[in-house]
Amino acid sequence: MKTVFTKDEFKDFVADVQKSDGYREPIGFGICRVDLGQKNPQKVLQATYPLTNWRENYGSASVFISALKEAGAEIDFSKSEIVYSISKTFIEASLRKFTPFISETGGDSHKNIQVLDFLKNRNDLHLFRLVFIFDDAPLQSVEATYLKLYALSQKKAELRSLNLNGAFGVLHNVAWSGNRPYELEWLRDSEIELKIFNMYPNIDSVDKFPRFLQHVIPEDNTRILDASKVRMGAQLAAGTTVMPGASYINFNAGTTGVSMVEGRISSSAIVGDGSDVGGGASILGVLSGTNGNPISVGKNSLLGANSVCGIPLGDGCIIDAGIAILEGTKVSISEGELKKLQELNPELPTQPTFKGKELAGINGVHFRQNSENGQITAFRSKREVKLNDELH
Amino acid sequence: MKTVFTKDEFKDFVADVQKSDGYREPIGFGICRVDLGQKNPQKVLQATYPLTNWRENYGSASVFISALKEAGAEIDFSKSEIVYSISKTFIEASLRKFTPFISETGGDSHKNIQVLDFLKNRNDLHLFRLVFIFDDAPLQSVEATYLKLYALSQKKAELRSLNLNGAFGVLHNVAWSGNRPYELEWLRDSEIELKIFNMYPNIDSVDKFPRFLQHVIPEDNTRILDASKVRMGAQLAAGTTVMPGASYINFNAGTTGVSMVEGRISSSAIVGDGSDVGGGASILGVLSGTNGNPISVGKNSLLGANSVCGIPLGDGCIIDAGIAILEGTKVSISEGELKKLQELNPELPTQPTFKGKELAGINGVHFRQNSENGQITAFRSKREVKLNDELH
Amino acid sequence: MKTVFTKDEFKDFVADVQKSDGYREPIGFGICRVDLGQKNPQKVLQATYPLTNWRENYGSASVFISALKEAGAEIDFSKSEIVYSISKTFIEASLRKFTPFISETGGDSHKNIQVLDFLKNRNDLHLFRLVFIFDDAPLQSVEATYLKLYALSQKKAELRSLNLNGAFGVLHNVAWSGNRPYELEWLRDSEIELKIFNMYPNIDSVDKFPRFLQHVIPEDNTRILDASKVRMGAQLAAGTTVMPGASYINFNAGTTGVSMVEGRISSSAIVGDGSDVGGGASILGVLSGTNGNPISVGKNSLLGANSVCGIPLGDGCIIDAGIAILEGTKVSISEGELKKLQELNPELPTQPTFKGKELAGINGVHFRQNSENGQITAFRSKREVKLNDELH
Repeated sequence: MKTVFTKDEFKDFVADVQKSDGYREPIGFGICRVDLGQKNPQKVLQATYPLTNWRENYGSASVFISALKEAGAEIDFSKSEIVYSISKTFIEASLRKFTPFISETGGDSHKNIQVLDFLKNRNDLHLFRLVFIFDDAPLQSVEATYLKLYALSQKKAELRSLNLNGAFGVLHNVAWSGNRPYELEWLRDSEIELKIFNMYPNIDSVDKFPRFLQHVIPEDNTRILDASKVRMGAQLAAGTTVMPGASYINFNAGTTGVSMVEGRISSSAIVGDGSDVGGGASILGVLSGTNGNPISVGKNSLLGANSVCGIPLGDGCIIDAGIAILEGTKVSISEGELKKLQELNPELPTQPTFKGKELAGINGVHFRQNSENGQITAFRSKREVKLNDELH
Repeated sequence: MKTVFTKDEFKDFVADVQKSDGYREPIGFGICRVDLGQKNPQKVLQATYPLTNWRENYGSASVFISALKEAGAEIDFSKSEIVYSISKTFIEASLRKFTPFISETGGDSHKNIQVLDFLKNRNDLHLFRLVFIFDDAPLQSVEATYLKLYALSQKKAELRSLNLNGAFGVLHNVAWSGNRPYELEWLRDSEIELKIFNMYPNIDSVDKFPRFLQHVIPEDNTRILDASKVRMGAQLAAGTTVMPGASYINFNAGTTGVSMVEGRISSSAIVGDGSDVGGGASILGVLSGTNGNPISVGKNSLLGANSVCGIPLGDGCIIDAGIAILEGTKVSISEGELKKLQELNPELPTQPTFKGKELAGINGVHFRQNSENGQITAFRSKREVKLNDELH
Repeated sequence: MKTVFTKDEFKDFVADVQKSDGYREPIGFGICRVDLGQKNPQKVLQATYPLTNWRENYGSASVFISALKEAGAEIDFSKSEIVYSISKTFIEASLRKFTPFISETGGDSHKNIQVLDFLKNRNDLHLFRLVFIFDDAPLQSVEATYLKLYALSQKKAELRSLNLNGAFGVLHNVAWSGNRPYELEWLRDSEIELKIFNMYPNIDSVDKFPRFLQHVIPEDNTRILDASKVRMGAQLAAGTTVMPGASYINFNAGTTGVSMVEGRISSSAIVGDGSDVGGGASILGVLSGTNGNPISVGKNSLLGANSVCGIPLGDGCIIDAGIAILEGTKVSISEGELKKLQELNPELPTQPTFKGKELAGINGVHFRQNSENGQITAFRSKREVKLNDELH
């Protein structure tokens, strides 16, 4: 196979690959290091990506595809995902094609080449895999599952935008000791020896998913005070703070702007910019009480301490500390307050009482329990709602 | 002392030991590795059991008792618990008696022999202890306390079935760094040196108890997303998931079936199969508000997010998100709903209002706060209650 | 410079230093080890104090000041804080002045000399800094910030007594792996290499503050079941237990006596002796709902599970499980109960309803939501209030 020498030749080469038979642009691809089972080495326990490519770097994809073929692999573009073992031949073939860029590689430039460069002299290549995702279909491999989780956690894909079906079936439940996963079965087989030899590992968690911080580096102004509080696959906008009290952000859930998170953001729930999830507040997820309707909390909203949010909220909303607003909660609104809310939310009908779900997505509403008679009421909140221009 | 050569001779040998003067069957026994105080080496900070025996393996118990005698120990069967140091003589004497089983030892077979086998060439035998518990009496040693905690956490003894009195007095409060306990006093003495030499240990917790996952390997379908959330001495049925948000399972508390735990199961509380402890929900314990009555939650019940459960619940119950049902809570039940509940619970008297404690253990009840008037009400839940045949 | 030989000469020497031009008594001082940035070595990521001096040990301060001068440093007493690099000359000069105490150094005696003694043969002195705080002014350096956090956490300064302004600006947000801080920027630069070489660190948290237990050794009867639950700068009285469920104690917050903490003590909040913060209970902080009024909870008070405390409480108070008492909550009190409360709290006016903030600091009050009509009520609690003699 011929080596690519100039950047123009590289362009031609990429165009050739992309015109080749059956070629499809990958949604995502990357090379990962895998942890294998201690007892069942055919089991992939974890896949760690030094670098991911998600709807980007199609030139590098072409290089990898071409190098795979050169290394003897057949590529079935009709599959939704494919996983290949890395070989020395593959690495060398890839680097040859990258020749015109080698001299400018480093820092933030040409990171796929950097990956190959670190790999080229390693003697544990059996632990590295090249992964392509062509369709956003149900997951079939641990490696592709991690690639999608990375896409979410690295903010390359939007929350709720990916097909994560099959993830729970594909991932193995393992014991995590730091970044290292252990098969439970191996621990059981080795328990006597490990304990007598004082080598029993310190287990941080037992789960199918690793923690976000095992794989993802947050922005400088993002804080996660306890790594156990954010699962891999969560997404945290820059400026998010996750406190360690009663908080939790599950996979496929998170924040889209600066926010303070002291409560729970269940899988599928999203919290907007400037919003605050108070200490112990719960945002229910599709698996926990919302009848399958995922919850978004808008911008500049506040969930009070120990409140429960079971409906989507608009912008500038407040749920008072300690109360639960669920789909079936009956909420009374006085005529005067309803009028104010209708100014912001023209779609709101005129009636004295609403079910929680009838207030889904409404802006500027403050939910309170009247402390004299126990009635759940709503009124215009004092938090600012930045109205969308299209509305007026 | 004579060596046992055949399995028949082994049986005779065991029978002889069991007929010997004062012999009592142990409730539990095992060999543990101890961590000793850095400053006060007579203090046992932790006992780690490679293997426990609980109401089982009486033949091995006989071997150990006989080998102890051979090694010069006197055994006082009148005590509730005894702790012996292990010696090379003891190990060799034990292995001699186990001769007929040596060849078939390995995997899941003859684990007590495996323990001896790993021990026999070690030169740190002063760290290993043989422990017997003969009576379920108040605890006197760290080693016996750990053996009972193992029995609970390994599901060999039922929750609430063991006498744990004395545990808090016997266990030392230590700083845990991974699986390693440090005396606080030693840390204080060594602080200046450790900090200057950059060797100050990373402390995960300061407690008398270790964490469950330091000692126990859960089933493959059990998940604990944060090791700090389950104390040693807790019991988790296979299929239990413990989320990391606001959950906690204390010692002598836990689950008896598949369950989702996102809230707190206080010491003495038990949650049944198919039940769900919602995010931030609290099940009170005997030390925290139940007047000494331990709480069981039945099967297929649901505690909503941030609810508080201060009474025992039957099967198929629901406490709505955010409300507290305590012994003194007044609960209104309409005539129609009361009738439905009485079908399931014939013992329920006819009256318009119940105190929480009068509804203890009732099946199929759904607790809610009326959002229009603040009244706490109960009605027949929509969750399935599988009626016990004896009831009908 | 002359060496001090006798204790009397030492006294004279100290008096001389203290009379010297511009001398001011430091509020606090100490030598710390710093962790520097992996990418930006001029950044101090953490300062670890083997020993702190806070309004004490002025003799040692004089030695250090004199030795600094001997080592060529100029000392500007007009600054609120100063940070000096340590040199061999400084250590030797200090030790010479401490001569009369060297022979009696060890154990709890002359700990500043012990620090010097461990330092004197080290070859990483560039990592050690001498810090003085002369004014309790806004913070300017990482080293001084840590010294104030130590003063709070080691109970040398009272909660809320120190000026912590500037701390968030001065401290860097870093990734903590055990006791070791990493620059996020360095992790980003090194991600590919670290992940391929399987050397990516296990990150426990990302925060500006370390955890309390990374720096402070609690009393023997104090328990912290999860290190992530207490931030550096918190203060825990002996006998405090912090459970791992939904608890959190922020910096400049904590307890002043024996207490059980299963909930959140926000920054600026203080809990008194014998009080109990129930599972998931929230005490609001000045940044979270109290309009800038810091909350104190008195002695022997109880916050029920999942309650929210938004006002200061006196002694012997109870907030029932699951309810929120905020500044604006309307609380009804019957005539009879009000009379009982007025006996304890003569300042309480006679009226049927109070706003939460009108009950701030009142003793012996029990807050409850009437479960028949949703009304928030208050009455005389059954918890003992030990009346201050001055009141009667």
